[in-house]
Amino acid sequence: MPRITAQPLTRKAFEPYGDVIEIREDDRHFPINDGTTERFDDLATAIALGEEARVAISMARAQPFQLPHFVHMVERHPEGSQAFIPVVPARFLVIVSPDQRGKPGNPEAFLAGPGQGINFFAGTWHGVLTTLDRQTDFIIVDRKGVGENLKTFTFDEPWEVDID
Amino acid sequence: MPRITAQPLTRKAFEPYGDVIEIREDDRHFPINDGTTERFDDLATAIALGEEARVAISMARAQPFQLPHFVHMVERHPEGSQAFIPVVPARFLVIVSPDQRGKPGNPEAFLAGPGQGINFFAGTWHGVLTTLDRQTDFIIVDRKGVGENLKTFTFDEPWEVDID
Repeated sequence: MPRITAQPLTRKAFEPYGDVIEIREDDRHFPINDGTTERFDDLATAIALGEEARVAISMARAQPFQLPHFVHMVERHPEGSQAFIPVVPARFLVIVSPDQRGKPGNPEAFLAGPGQGINFFAGTWHGVLTTLDRQTDFIIVDRKGVGENLKTFTFDEPWEVDID
Repeated sequence: MPRITAQPLTRKAFEPYGDVIEIREDDRHFPINDGTTERFDDLATAIALGEEARVAISMARAQPFQLPHFVHMVERHPEGSQAFIPVVPARFLVIVSPDQRGKPGNPEAFLAGPGQGINFFAGTWHGVLTTLDRQTDFIIVDRKGVGENLKTFTFDEPWEVDID
């Protein structure tokens, strides 16, 4: 069985797939509310394409996965981005594949840590929500609209994903 | 000085002003990811009106306020909704005013607790981000676009806000 090891989630490494939503003090930021709050602006754009499309905020309560994790399939949403942001400090796996002429290539895995969320670009192949340590509640920012916005792909053989 | 006491943040009480973003087990929800995750769907809609408008995800690092809190001004964003969701369990005040022919009426205050976020409807008069216990990081989902999207109003006399 093919195996991959999750790498740390950084903006640079994740750039082909989406945005990392996190506060980094060395990023550009500016005061709001008379200086009591610092705003780290515009970390991600929420996209909702197509008929009667809008951006909605939802939540998800996710049960933890055991490691190693086996990736049987990936999915993508051609018409919209999709953000997942935990509302408690959490570690979760982010599994993505580059697109290769309409099919997912070999997956890559990232380990998101406390204070990190992600936003998949529209069309990014990705695995399921995979929190690691305990039940975790997430904010989801994604598309509502008319029409089909889900494609799935099952790998011939599952990929085994682990962390260092 | 006029005084108000913050009331618990509930969907019913907050209905004129916006959405409460929280997981309530008795709400409609449905399994995703082969049943490992329950999705509480469509708790709020992100609105971005006007030219070149889009929905962006930002973050804010907010310093705590002392109680009582004095509300000198409120603001609103006619062209877009604005969501604030803490990424750690937190208590924060949500201060809003009904609109009365283009000006804010007497403010109301709500106390948001752990697991709660809010989404102000476009045009809702509201106070500044007011976390209570410690430095708190928030997700913000709001509008980016061309044109003026901020109106502020300063009260003749500040309002004193406290909790029970």
